[in-house]
Amino acid sequence: MELIVYLAGQIHDDWRDRLRRTARERGLPLIFVGPQENHDRSDAIGEIIKGEQPNAVYRDQAASEFNNLRTRIWMQKADVIIALFGEKYRQWNTAMDAALAIQSGKPLILVRPETLHHPLKELAQRAQVVVETPEQALEALAYVLE
Amino acid sequence: MELIVYLAGQIHDDWRDRLRRTARERGLPLIFVGPQENHDRSDAIGEIIKGEQPNAVYRDQAASEFNNLRTRIWMQKADVIIALFGEKYRQWNTAMDAALAIQSGKPLILVRPETLHHPLKELAQRAQVVVETPEQALEALAYVLE
Amino acid sequence: MELIVYLAGQIHDDWRDRLRRTARERGLPLIFVGPQENHDRSDAIGEIIKGEQPNAVYRDQAASEFNNLRTRIWMQKADVIIALFGEKYRQWNTAMDAALAIQSGKPLILVRPETLHHPLKELAQRAQVVVETPEQALEALAYVLE
Amino acid sequence: MELIVYLAGQIHDDWRDRLRRTARERGLPLIFVGPQENHDRSDAIGEIIKGEQPNAVYRDQAASEFNNLRTRIWMQKADVIIALFGEKYRQWNTAMDAALAIQSGKPLILVRPETLHHPLKELAQRAQVVVETPEQALEALAYVLE
Amino acid sequence: MELIVYLAGQIHDDWRDRLRRTARERGLPLIFVGPQENHDRSDAIGEIIKGEQPNAVYRDQAASEFNNLRTRIWMQKADVIIALFGEKYRQWNTAMDAALAIQSGKPLILVRPETLHHPLKELAQRAQVVVETPEQALEALAYVLE
Amino acid sequence: MELIVYLAGQIHDDWRDRLRRTARERGLPLIFVGPQENHDRSDAIGEIIKGEQPNAVYRDQAASEFNNLRTRIWMQKADVIIALFGEKYRQWNTAMDAALAIQSGKPLILVRPETLHHPLKELAQRAQVVVETPEQALEALAYVLE
Amino acid sequence: MELIVYLAGQIHDDWRDRLRRTARERGLPLIFVGPQENHDRSDAIGEIIKGEQPNAVYRDQAASEFNNLRTRIWMQKADVIIALFGEKYRQWNTAMDAALAIQSGKPLILVRPETLHHPLKELAQRAQVVVETPEQALEALAYVLE
Amino acid sequence: MELIVYLAGQIHDDWRDRLRRTARERGLPLIFVGPQENHDRSDAIGEIIKGEQPNAVYRDQAASEFNNLRTRIWMQKADVIIALFGEKYRQWNTAMDAALAIQSGKPLILVRPETLHHPLKELAQRAQVVVETPEQALEALAYVLE
Repeated sequence: MELIVYLAGQIHDDWRDRLRRTARERGLPLIFVGPQENHDRSDAIGEIIKGEQPNAVYRDQAASEFNNLRTRIWMQKADVIIALFGEKYRQWNTAMDAALAIQSGKPLILVRPETLHHPLKELAQRAQVVVETPEQALEALAYVLE
Repeated sequence: MELIVYLAGQIHDDWRDRLRRTARERGLPLIFVGPQENHDRSDAIGEIIKGEQPNAVYRDQAASEFNNLRTRIWMQKADVIIALFGEKYRQWNTAMDAALAIQSGKPLILVRPETLHHPLKELAQRAQVVVETPEQALEALAYVLE
Repeated sequence: MELIVYLAGQIHDDWRDRLRRTARERGLPLIFVGPQENHDRSDAIGEIIKGEQPNAVYRDQAASEFNNLRTRIWMQKADVIIALFGEKYRQWNTAMDAALAIQSGKPLILVRPETLHHPLKELAQRAQVVVETPEQALEALAYVLE
Repeated sequence: MELIVYLAGQIHDDWRDRLRRTARERGLPLIFVGPQENHDRSDAIGEIIKGEQPNAVYRDQAASEFNNLRTRIWMQKADVIIALFGEKYRQWNTAMDAALAIQSGKPLILVRPETLHHPLKELAQRAQVVVETPEQALEALAYVLE
Repeated sequence: MELIVYLAGQIHDDWRDRLRRTARERGLPLIFVGPQENHDRSDAIGEIIKGEQPNAVYRDQAASEFNNLRTRIWMQKADVIIALFGEKYRQWNTAMDAALAIQSGKPLILVRPETLHHPLKELAQRAQVVVETPEQALEALAYVLE
Repeated sequence: MELIVYLAGQIHDDWRDRLRRTARERGLPLIFVGPQENHDRSDAIGEIIKGEQPNAVYRDQAASEFNNLRTRIWMQKADVIIALFGEKYRQWNTAMDAALAIQSGKPLILVRPETLHHPLKELAQRAQVVVETPEQALEALAYVLE
Repeated sequence: MELIVYLAGQIHDDWRDRLRRTARERGLPLIFVGPQENHDRSDAIGEIIKGEQPNAVYRDQAASEFNNLRTRIWMQKADVIIALFGEKYRQWNTAMDAALAIQSGKPLILVRPETLHHPLKELAQRAQVVVETPEQALEALAYVLE
Repeated sequence: MELIVYLAGQIHDDWRDRLRRTARERGLPLIFVGPQENHDRSDAIGEIIKGEQPNAVYRDQAASEFNNLRTRIWMQKADVIIALFGEKYRQWNTAMDAALAIQSGKPLILVRPETLHHPLKELAQRAQVVVETPEQALEALAYVLE
């Protein structure tokens, strides 16, 4: 039986690629879904589809319609959500996706460096699992699949 | 008919007091609930109730049990959630509370300065109302109560 | 025991006033809630609270944030929804409110002249009650309260 | 992974055919479902199955039983709903399907010409995506599938 | 704290009156709701409100709109459902109300003479309590309120 | 796409066989599930699995555990429920299954001879479709699959 | 605003009385509900209401109908559940009530001596709060009410 | 059609192996899922993935994160839950899984020796089926699949 895993978190480095590669190497039956990973495309998608907007706020709003469409469709299909936090960026989308998972009853694996324990304490306490690296999150899923 | 309003957001200044005062002055039938507003007490409550913990991570974890208990009880009773974002702090709890409101079908009023439009665009797009000041959020509720 | 009744439908004439008056005269324990009934205010509320918008589309969008806030809060509290259709106006908000009631399991009383039976046939078939006048809708609630 | 897309909207022209053709040409893994597209058959199905009815109102009611059966079964299976509005027809079924999607938590893509922004403002504000052509709706789904 | 009790079952004798009287004499804080108890009025209500119907089937259908409106409103408010079965009548409404209670997670007290154990075995097995007289049902509620 | 159809109703004649045969002949992609159709086995299954019971009431109770297990598993998987009523038998299980379908939001096709319109009026009014023969129910599903 | 608190756990000593007394002394606006606290009455209630049963198993089954009725009604009304575990007794009812709270989204306060950490580790990990004494549970609620 | 069966209960002997073997021999289309069956690994998994913890309580807490992750993912996918109780061990996890099944509406088959009828009476009364051996549970599923 395959599990569908939603990968929430920043889209500025290749952490998802590394996770997918490791899963493939280990032969884990995981299907990964998630947000648009091309950052420029994610910001521009509103104007690409809807045309030019009056200003930056509306440009953002237009983009978020399509990013949220994507997130909602894939999170509904996911069996489990991995949410990765790092030192950089505000990452409010990550917090949002993590809380959407909590409230919809989908198990959440929170990945964060220990240095972030204080600002993430309430979110961590409601996650199903808290680890520090994406590799540990994969270990957790491998354990589920044993 | 009274409405119960949950006030999510940072607990470092007196924005809730100003909101409560204005609501009272305008005679709006609003009951405000929300997180613990004494910041030191919010951080210390775990050790106050459960005793000393092994280290800072566990101290945080213990505190978050009680903070989340409070949040869950009052958010379940709330008719509407106001979530305030500002320039300072990471505010992941605010993002969490906002997304819990979205997923549980409770209407969300997002308050944020326009300067934050980019990092909050996806959260804003799923909020019911987006305004820039707590006073505007109160205007929105006054409109509901007309 | 009082019942809370949401009154969906156009806001261009005084049908709600007549309904409220009749209910009061008959001593029925009904609390009526519903959309903003001042049409100009309903259209302008977005710019009143959020300030001037770039164009008419955004002006509408801003207004709808507050109108939907109002609708959601009161529909959540309602025990039953009355949705009135007439010959004039597009009334897509009425159809929307009626379907929100159906999907959330709240009993729906549909009021429409018989002349509209064809375009409303699918909505009517999923309503709990279909009548032709607001007075009949009130009769239905009086029957519930006997 | 395939997505199931429910196509709500009028059944008087071939907009669904064009959408299906384009999706096929682009190789998008989309399965389209929707209402009966033969308008006469949609109106007559009640009497075809149940036999002659006393008058036009009951004829409509009988037809709507089967049309609603179809809508409910396919909307329950859909991952996303596209609802198309145009200048012609009352389109209360489209508004109904759109609101059923909103209330059941299924992402809604609203397609409407900008000229309809005012009467559709509340529905648009609760949709996940608002665009002006079916082709843009397909672009949105292609973006989800990237 | 008061409990709201829905009394499902036939409306041909005065079993509800006896139950209400006994509850009052024992001082139990119970609020009783239920279907229309005047049998003729229950059958005629459709034509009373909507006017004459084409034939007996449509007369029944019209009446059931209002009877179901009543049932839905009060069952939504009830904390517990008592469903009484006897030897007479088909009692499909009673079976319907009992199953609506089961599926909506409301505790069901089934009252039936032991002679009916065979045809009611599946319904009884999913009820919360099965007793033989209304007085026993009241004992059960008194036990809850101790 | 295949649809799963739960066939509720009496198990004393071969109406399900006829329905299955017709569906197969017409090539409809329907998978039929339902209760145990061997009546004696349905009554005896409790003692067959659990051993002899103290008396007839407990024998019935034991059987109903397994019959309800079967019903619950298959109804959860069904896309649509057909419930057949006839002149014979009390058929409280049929009414129960029909109401479980209504409350769980699964579309219900009610099949009953017109002679039963009065005692079934409330159940019929909440069904999605009401027809008089199993063949008409199959027509309804064929219409959905067009 | 008052909170309703369900007190799950063994009924062999007076821990609930102490909790209620302390809450009253501190003036906390808490309403306590819970299972029947008279142990003999809890075991006998089935035969008291339904009459003598064939053997001890059926006697237990009859009693549990009424005990579960009580639990379900009060847990549905509770805002928060306190579940107390001790060294004695099997306490499967306590584990059951705790898990019912978890799955229904009601916040759970688990009270257990540290000596029980191993066998309760999975239940503890899904509780909202874990403490060692009823007094600490009351502290937690006092914190919510500050 | 295959059924997914979650096997809750102690992990100290090979009852699951026997069940799986019998199901295979009988050719039943059942897919079995469940907790980690290697007891040492189940206790150690927290430290294996997260590293050494401050003490035994935190070691347990860490392990339970992963055990609960596994339980939640597989119970969400299960069509039916079998929960086995025996004379040994506290088995609070088994009671927890059984109650999670009850509250999420998944049918529960409770397996327990008759000697345990008293402490399990409330859990048994809310189970769908109560039997004394795993073989009987398999008989129940075979009956569903006939």
